[in-house]
Amino acid sequence: METPNSAKRGRGRPRKIHEGAFETKERLIRHGTALLTERGFASTGLEQFLKDVGIPKGSFYHYFPSKDAFGLAVLQNYGIYFARKLDKWLLNENRAPLDRLQDFIDDAKGGLARFSFRRGCLVGNLGQELGSLSDEFRDPLEDIFQDWQARVKACLDIAMENGELDNTQSTNDMAACFWIGWEGAILRAKLVQSTEPVDLFARSFFMGIKAPSLTTKLNRE
Amino acid sequence: METPNSAKRGRGRPRKIHEGAFETKERLIRHGTALLTERGFASTGLEQFLKDVGIPKGSFYHYFPSKDAFGLAVLQNYGIYFARKLDKWLLNENRAPLDRLQDFIDDAKGGLARFSFRRGCLVGNLGQELGSLSDEFRDPLEDIFQDWQARVKACLDIAMENGELDNTQSTNDMAACFWIGWEGAILRAKLVQSTEPVDLFARSFFMGIKAPSLTTKLNRE
Repeated sequence: METPNSAKRGRGRPRKIHEGAFETKERLIRHGTALLTERGFASTGLEQFLKDVGIPKGSFYHYFPSKDAFGLAVLQNYGIYFARKLDKWLLNENRAPLDRLQDFIDDAKGGLARFSFRRGCLVGNLGQELGSLSDEFRDPLEDIFQDWQARVKACLDIAMENGELDNTQSTNDMAACFWIGWEGAILRAKLVQSTEPVDLFARSFFMGIKAPSLTTKLNRE
Repeated sequence: METPNSAKRGRGRPRKIHEGAFETKERLIRHGTALLTERGFASTGLEQFLKDVGIPKGSFYHYFPSKDAFGLAVLQNYGIYFARKLDKWLLNENRAPLDRLQDFIDDAKGGLARFSFRRGCLVGNLGQELGSLSDEFRDPLEDIFQDWQARVKACLDIAMENGELDNTQSTNDMAACFWIGWEGAILRAKLVQSTEPVDLFARSFFMGIKAPSLTTKLNRE
């Protein structure tokens, strides 16, 4: 998705594309991702950002018409990156479906600790910033949640088929609740600089969706 | 808590306190609350804020030594306001404990809709902004969560005594999970401009904590 696009290169102001143009765009996206996962988007001026990453304004505007367009590109890039990360864990056929979800959680906990709880979820951060952002961000943010939700649902569907989940609930609602709770857990983990909120959330999530034993099920209200 | 403090008035630069000085401080806190629930704190410059609310810089600095001190005062004010709101619902002895929690949720849903899903939770917003804020905000934010958590725990304790809750879980963990999920639900409700995420979260929260029937309990793993 981040490959240079020669068709695009032909548009706009005539500009000599130096070697390394691809690297510049990739570097912008990479630094933008760090910015958006660690700090606010609205609170960071474009000039300061470009100064920090050492990329001239001209190069920036070659790739992105505006700061918002840049933010949206970073968001889309993150959505795809994160979907691949989800697939890595959730499609792992060597593990039972609920273990796959736990594997994803454990991996994310490692990521939180590795960045000293400074980096959260880019989608959650931008979602929280919505009041300061252009409305253009709303649909792409929700689309990404829906995409992640569909991936978790597919994994839960297998667990449901295996009889591991409470069949009085829909896997769609369970998957929606997973991402609702997830964003809250990441927010709190950053605040207390510990993975404990993620563990608390995960335990409670699994407790709420697991099938009661057969007898239990018969006696359930 | 927002009463004028005559001891404070005597400090700092000599300044004639006009009638309405209390109103100025109150107005700053009120507008600050709107700002912090709707928009980002880091992304809003103090000058712009004061211009918008029509309060001169001099008046501002009479009450607050810095923008951060102002943000912390707004946060503390919100924490107390919200704790009172929680008490209103959670200490209502005319209702069963779990109904009290549902009453609070319903009231908050009304608030979300009333402000067209623009206003979220000030504590959640600031928590998400932590990467752009002074570290001074960290402890007060967590203190407020702990305070709210204690209030929800006290309500859940009554339900537990009544045998309404799953006694394999602690009410402390349940209360912690409530606020973790709550912040995620508010974030998502603002994004989709609907109370549905709050309902989804609430249903799943209650489902996860309610006591299975007696027979069910006996058969539980």
